[in-house]
Amino acid sequence: MLSIPKKVEIIEVGPRDGLQNEPRPIPTGQKKELISGLAKAGFSRLEATAFVHPKWVPQMSDAEEIAAYCNQLGIPYIALTPNLKSLERAIAANVKQIAVFVGASTAFNMKNINKTTKQSLDECEIIFEKAKDRNMFIRAYVSTAFSCPYQGDVSFDELNEVCKRFVRLGADEIDLGDTNGFANPQIVYDRFSRLKELYPDAVFVGHFHDTKKMALANVLAALLAGIDKFDSSIGGLGGCPFSPGAKGNAATEELIWMFNEMGVETGIAYERLEGVSAFAKSLSTRLANY
Amino acid sequence: MLSIPKKVEIIEVGPRDGLQNEPRPIPTGQKKELISGLAKAGFSRLEATAFVHPKWVPQMSDAEEIAAYCNQLGIPYIALTPNLKSLERAIAANVKQIAVFVGASTAFNMKNINKTTKQSLDECEIIFEKAKDRNMFIRAYVSTAFSCPYQGDVSFDELNEVCKRFVRLGADEIDLGDTNGFANPQIVYDRFSRLKELYPDAVFVGHFHDTKKMALANVLAALLAGIDKFDSSIGGLGGCPFSPGAKGNAATEELIWMFNEMGVETGIAYERLEGVSAFAKSLSTRLANY
Repeated sequence: MLSIPKKVEIIEVGPRDGLQNEPRPIPTGQKKELISGLAKAGFSRLEATAFVHPKWVPQMSDAEEIAAYCNQLGIPYIALTPNLKSLERAIAANVKQIAVFVGASTAFNMKNINKTTKQSLDECEIIFEKAKDRNMFIRAYVSTAFSCPYQGDVSFDELNEVCKRFVRLGADEIDLGDTNGFANPQIVYDRFSRLKELYPDAVFVGHFHDTKKMALANVLAALLAGIDKFDSSIGGLGGCPFSPGAKGNAATEELIWMFNEMGVETGIAYERLEGVSAFAKSLSTRLANY
Repeated sequence: MLSIPKKVEIIEVGPRDGLQNEPRPIPTGQKKELISGLAKAGFSRLEATAFVHPKWVPQMSDAEEIAAYCNQLGIPYIALTPNLKSLERAIAANVKQIAVFVGASTAFNMKNINKTTKQSLDECEIIFEKAKDRNMFIRAYVSTAFSCPYQGDVSFDELNEVCKRFVRLGADEIDLGDTNGFANPQIVYDRFSRLKELYPDAVFVGHFHDTKKMALANVLAALLAGIDKFDSSIGGLGGCPFSPGAKGNAATEELIWMFNEMGVETGIAYERLEGVSAFAKSLSTRLANY
């Protein structure tokens, strides 16, 4: 028998990471319908929205309304708050779990937020302090944890630099993102194993994309390293919306099928996902007719 | 580091397993072009054709011409010879490597060839004797090695019953087929590990389909069990031709990408596959416009 965890938590990120890049504005009502379907399917947590400037990400301009809806449903959810202004909005919206992100590669940080990795981490420190004052749960994403679309290889030291700081700041979970989907099972196993050895009390999460069809193989590799929390996106939402047939985030239903077949407990029945997966795909330009 | 083989053999099965179910007759010239492209890409072996009754599998009615073409190219190849009549045709065509198959599930054998597993194995015994007399290399497929589209679960004992006989008959390699693509990494690891323990001198091959997107995860699980030979099909040819978007065999280029990234030697350069993969897809009703 493969030595892997008996039970995992799947955190559904479709409503945020999945829909964020959709070119067509998705009506708030349809997002609520998606979230309600996911809540009914039995997820313990969702990543529901992002408090970002509506000029940069118009798709997330209804963050307050989505947060209010989740509060009303009573489902635990995460909201992305990349800066102090976001955090203030999230606090006002009564959000309990926030997420920040820093790329392990400086090239990625410069391209995305025009800051070096160190500048991003310094800003996180202030966000962490404020959030901790309010007992918020903090998810810390490390983007480009395995490789970077701009600089190519990302060294373990670059990754560790960010993880070390997040551990010191007291992140409740550290989420390693395979941003471009180029990670392979060997690097995934190595990096998670080394980080768990360095920070035995930290909680790590695996976040994979399916660009090269390796999402499930990478999940397996992370499981072998003892990881028991995984992000995924219903219907495989996410990825580049203009590339039909291209792959987005690891698809929730595919992860759950695999876990169920392997006897790894997820708490989610596959059959209950089918309707919500079909609905999720119908919202996506890339997946609607696919 | 994951403990896996440093080097693997990829056996390309597209020209036979991939094209066999194509509804449109594929001109022999196009098959030759595919085989020639694969030979140039550096494969050590192909499964090129099947000597089966043209009434049942019209797509393979040019087996003699394909065998002659491979002999002329000088690329090692396997031809499927499911019965004595097939074997005689293969011998006449100067084939050096043959393949037979028996399902681990009796339900599958009855449905496919109207024989019980035992009857199939008895027929194999006669084929093996004749083939061994001529020093042919014998690949022995175990279909439905993990689960069966007709009976569901297949027990390890059912699988072992067939493997034991193939070992005793002196098969040069035993190829476990995930016929319906429902295997999961746990069962793959378990079964290969147990078989290798029972038959340390036997050579095993993994043959996966991507129905549930687990092909690469299953390849990884087999690697972890020490398996170093894998079948795959260029472009993902194979599977049900009438189901657009459905998945066929594990796609050669996806396997090779993953192995290359993991530092596992395949002897095949990814870049050299792209042209032949595009050509392979153009031959397929399911993949042509996909």
